Amino acid sequence: MAIITLLTDFGNRDGFVGTMKGVIWQICPQAQIADISHQIAPQNITEGAIALWRAVRFFPAGTVHIAVIDPGVGTGRRAMAAQIGSQFFVGPDNGLFTPLVEDAQKAGAETRFVELDQPRYWLQQVSRTFHGRDIFAPVGAHLASGVALEELGTPFTDPVLLPLSKPVKTADGYKAHIAVVDAFGNLTTDLLWTEVAGRELLISTKDKVIHGLSPSYGHHQPGELIALVDSENYIEIAVVNGSAAKALGARVGDSVEVLFTSSE
Amino acid sequence: MAIITLLTDFGNRDGFVGTMKGVIWQICPQAQIADISHQIAPQNITEGAIALWRAVRFFPAGTVHIAVIDPGVGTGRRAMAAQIGSQFFVGPDNGLFTPLVEDAQKAGAETRFVELDQPRYWLQQVSRTFHGRDIFAPVGAHLASGVALEELGTPFTDPVLLPLSKPVKTADGYKAHIAVVDAFGNLTTDLLWTEVAGRELLISTKDKVIHGLSPSYGHHQPGELIALVDSENYIEIAVVNGSAAKALGARVGDSVEVLFTSSE
Amino acid sequence: MAIITLLTDFGNRDGFVGTMKGVIWQICPQAQIADISHQIAPQNITEGAIALWRAVRFFPAGTVHIAVIDPGVGTGRRAMAAQIGSQFFVGPDNGLFTPLVEDAQKAGAETRFVELDQPRYWLQQVSRTFHGRDIFAPVGAHLASGVALEELGTPFTDPVLLPLSKPVKTADGYKAHIAVVDAFGNLTTDLLWTEVAGRELLISTKDKVIHGLSPSYGHHQPGELIALVDSENYIEIAVVNGSAAKALGARVGDSVEVLFTSSE
Repeated sequence: MAIITLLTDFGNRDGFVGTMKGVIWQICPQAQIADISHQIAPQNITEGAIALWRAVRFFPAGTVHIAVIDPGVGTGRRAMAAQIGSQFFVGPDNGLFTPLVEDAQKAGAETRFVELDQPRYWLQQVSRTFHGRDIFAPVGAHLASGVALEELGTPFTDPVLLPLSKPVKTADGYKAHIAVVDAFGNLTTDLLWTEVAGRELLISTKDKVIHGLSPSYGHHQPGELIALVDSENYIEIAVVNGSAAKALGARVGDSVEVLFTSSE
Repeated sequence: MAIITLLTDFGNRDGFVGTMKGVIWQICPQAQIADISHQIAPQNITEGAIALWRAVRFFPAGTVHIAVIDPGVGTGRRAMAAQIGSQFFVGPDNGLFTPLVEDAQKAGAETRFVELDQPRYWLQQVSRTFHGRDIFAPVGAHLASGVALEELGTPFTDPVLLPLSKPVKTADGYKAHIAVVDAFGNLTTDLLWTEVAGRELLISTKDKVIHGLSPSYGHHQPGELIALVDSENYIEIAVVNGSAAKALGARVGDSVEVLFTSSE
Repeated sequence: MAIITLLTDFGNRDGFVGTMKGVIWQICPQAQIADISHQIAPQNITEGAIALWRAVRFFPAGTVHIAVIDPGVGTGRRAMAAQIGSQFFVGPDNGLFTPLVEDAQKAGAETRFVELDQPRYWLQQVSRTFHGRDIFAPVGAHLASGVALEELGTPFTDPVLLPLSKPVKTADGYKAHIAVVDAFGNLTTDLLWTEVAGRELLISTKDKVIHGLSPSYGHHQPGELIALVDSENYIEIAVVNGSAAKALGARVGDSVEVLFTSSE
């Protein structure tokens, strides 16, 4: 069973995503295709990188992920395919795969990168503006059909990596940051709960202070501002049945102070 | 052929839905997956219940519907799976399946409910905020793979049921309500056309009066306010090529008076 | 492998599209289904026709495309199925297939049209407002299952064709028009690059003048107004990493003057 995912900033209105599926099924008719997101903010590589990273570990070994947030399309930026751990990736070499590469390196998992330079695996006509359709979709479909990574291009070892925000240890806690604002308006920080487990916490952002972590949204009244552990084990700030992003005027990159109020 | 549908309030931006598909395909790689909607208003169980109910009867016997509008995630609310008639359902026990249960009871069709309490059918790590991924997607995939309902949990007989709006018979007609506002801005009421068939009607809402039912949108000029029978046999109020919701400032729950102007 | 695409103006909120997939899988369980778009502006047949046309040539021979932008649903407008070249089409006969028919006629490719009048290939109950579910989805699924076109209806030869905008040759260039505004706000004109290849160009619209064609977005600074060749070989106007539609206040139908500044 060949599984392919798509993540882009194309939106769902113009038919670009459907077109990529046509290209894929011409090459790999049995592919099951899942959309991760096509609503990434235009040209926002970081937002795309985080959304992709959050989804990938729930897919089977051998899945091919095609990701196209590509402001450099038509310039000299590299087009790439990769194996990271047990899964495959296709897209522009602009940092989209950064957190996946970092995790693999930490875990000692295998990473292999190739620069796509074998036009026989692309559409015959390659436009200057839509490599998602002309290069990445066909390359992904060939990977899913069993073509070896090294057939598709020339190995390289220095993929572009984004400088992702990291929490900074302070005297009495962490200076963290908002890493993701989701569609509910929940604010995920870059601070893993495992870094602060067992400590009493005071969490402050945008002049609001939250005491401790809540077990779930449903333990509070609608409208209450809470902090909790999100589905990826990161500290999250939320308004119950509401939008913390709107309530606080918070945005990606805003800082979040996390203070320990008990000794370890 | 295993068919699974998904209905959530997750939106399509953050990758939550794609992630659920990854989980499903890990367990049931041959599953065909259809999205019913991921644009249900956040935490609006009634809106989700009606959208699901409208779609379900068009799916084949054996389809597994996973529905996650889940403001109580992480609290003690029950997680459930059900057989209703010839199809299967997985989600929180908060009323999402109300109109399906009511229809089945009216029709004398079989209903079986189990509380999900067998973690061997879940992901190994269960978060407090994303049971769609950690419990409902894997349980749905196991059902679609042929695991029996009673393997997944303990039977119960009292699912939560929502108090859905119903039309009220009056001396000379019905007091109905707007039950759904669709993406076109069409207003579907809770009054079945079969209740008023053969009668001359005067339909009034928000200080506007409509005379009789029209055979279709296309029989009128753009901008005209009309009433007609919708695709589910309910009385609907619409503006031709426009939005009745915007034109009238109408919302779910608003009342709609239906007067008989002829004797039976 | 049976491949079906869907293009509608239904949006993704109300479950109409999911319902169509249920109907399709009842008849053709092995069908792979791709969404082209469900965000076409309500009742905008021209927008739907162009989005469909842009996607179709990337799908395999034998694909069945179901397109439902259908302001005339429930009136006497014809319901149709067609073979255009090697692919199949189902929808209302209101011009949705115009650019595909025109291309086929230019290329001398086969076109066959039938009026759908065989209710045994429809759902048993046909509503007045949702032929996408009741007629077009089941007919498309039967086509994908191998039912012959002529089984589905009565041949005809005069499909409705839309008057699509065309560029007009002038003394020193072309008067073109904006044909599509995509989700990025890029403005695609109706002028093929091949009509002006090799000439120096001055492109003006909405009181702005652009000198020449750029090789790609990435060759310019964010915010710059440029013209380039789009993924379908048409002249496009764009703002790098921004929205030309917003920056210029431009809309479909606005004129774009293209002047030759060099002799051939």
